[in-house]
Amino acid sequence: MDRPVRHFQQELGDLRARLRDMGDLAEQRIRTAIEGLVARDPSRIESVRGGDQPINDLQMEIDDRCFKLLALQQPVAVDLRVIVAAVKMNSDLERVGDLAVNVAEAASRYLLCDPVSKAIDLHKMGHLAQAMLHQALEAFGHEDVALAQGVLEDDDRLDALRDHIFRELLTEMLADPSTVEAALDLLLVSRHLERVGDHATNIAEDVIFMVSARDVRHQATGA
Amino acid sequence: MDRPVRHFQQELGDLRARLRDMGDLAEQRIRTAIEGLVARDPSRIESVRGGDQPINDLQMEIDDRCFKLLALQQPVAVDLRVIVAAVKMNSDLERVGDLAVNVAEAASRYLLCDPVSKAIDLHKMGHLAQAMLHQALEAFGHEDVALAQGVLEDDDRLDALRDHIFRELLTEMLADPSTVEAALDLLLVSRHLERVGDHATNIAEDVIFMVSARDVRHQATGA
Repeated sequence: MDRPVRHFQQELGDLRARLRDMGDLAEQRIRTAIEGLVARDPSRIESVRGGDQPINDLQMEIDDRCFKLLALQQPVAVDLRVIVAAVKMNSDLERVGDLAVNVAEAASRYLLCDPVSKAIDLHKMGHLAQAMLHQALEAFGHEDVALAQGVLEDDDRLDALRDHIFRELLTEMLADPSTVEAALDLLLVSRHLERVGDHATNIAEDVIFMVSARDVRHQATGA
Repeated sequence: MDRPVRHFQQELGDLRARLRDMGDLAEQRIRTAIEGLVARDPSRIESVRGGDQPINDLQMEIDDRCFKLLALQQPVAVDLRVIVAAVKMNSDLERVGDLAVNVAEAASRYLLCDPVSKAIDLHKMGHLAQAMLHQALEAFGHEDVALAQGVLEDDDRLDALRDHIFRELLTEMLADPSTVEAALDLLLVSRHLERVGDHATNIAEDVIFMVSARDVRHQATGA
């Protein structure tokens, strides 16, 4: 039995490593999209818009690894939880990749307009969303429930920033209707970043389940 | 071996039935939110805003069923594909439930404003998004790849509607800045509906994988 067990643990290690690769890629793409927006840099924006293939390939590879591990190794307990968490995280990370493309698309439209003066907090929001994602991935890598818990707490801060940005942009549009088009693009970016935070939250919840077998979802709305 | 096999097929049947329940619930909540918006009916809107608990409970129950089936029955081949598809569909349906809440929240703000005249297509978009979801769930229920394929094709129509609505609302805002707040809420609703369509697409892709073991994701972006 020793060899197949070692083989299985090796495969599981490979799966985790590939998820980290995918997480790094997703994180880097969100960062580049926001940097491109803030710096009004078309080359960074275009690199994100056109560069979705590696993350899509990784998604299919990871799903395939999960499926084969489930089918051939019939894992139980914590190993099974790792694989189920991996299936979910894989979906979340692929959507983060899609959101980076969405941010880049809004940014490339935004570049055609005069800049909106009060866009500074969008940078802050981008930074927080990316930090949440980073922390969720660290929590996964180190099986650290406390780190994962921190991500859940940051989600409220992200939502507060989203509301703040919404009010700022609305004020801007009402005061100067010529800013409407540009402000709409920034509004969409803020919504994309909110969703990056949601995916980081999902990953953090999966990590908590994976490590402790506790389901912490929907606690705030619990009856 | 006969009894455990029959037991397993029974459990799998129960899982599928619960997923259908969840799908019906998600579909009904999107429909009610859009109807409430179009009819400017606060009671329907509030029923969606406050009624997220049953779908959240179902999500946890379904995840738990999937996990137990994987751990205790060690399924292979098509049975394993059904369970992996169920894990993913479960996430998608829960997010559709969240999106119904998001639509209802935008609708309740929208009720405080004068109506925007050209909101008719939002109704159309809501109808299409809901029909896509319904069709994806039918495809799952009947293991019908052709039905699932139809959902993927509808996604382009949904995106075209989203772009059309965006242009209409932008024109409205530029022509009459007093409509900005109301138009922003409708814009957000159109983005929520776009995401409902994305989740329907994900479910359709999972059905195709479940039935035929073919991964049809990312084909349009394939190198």
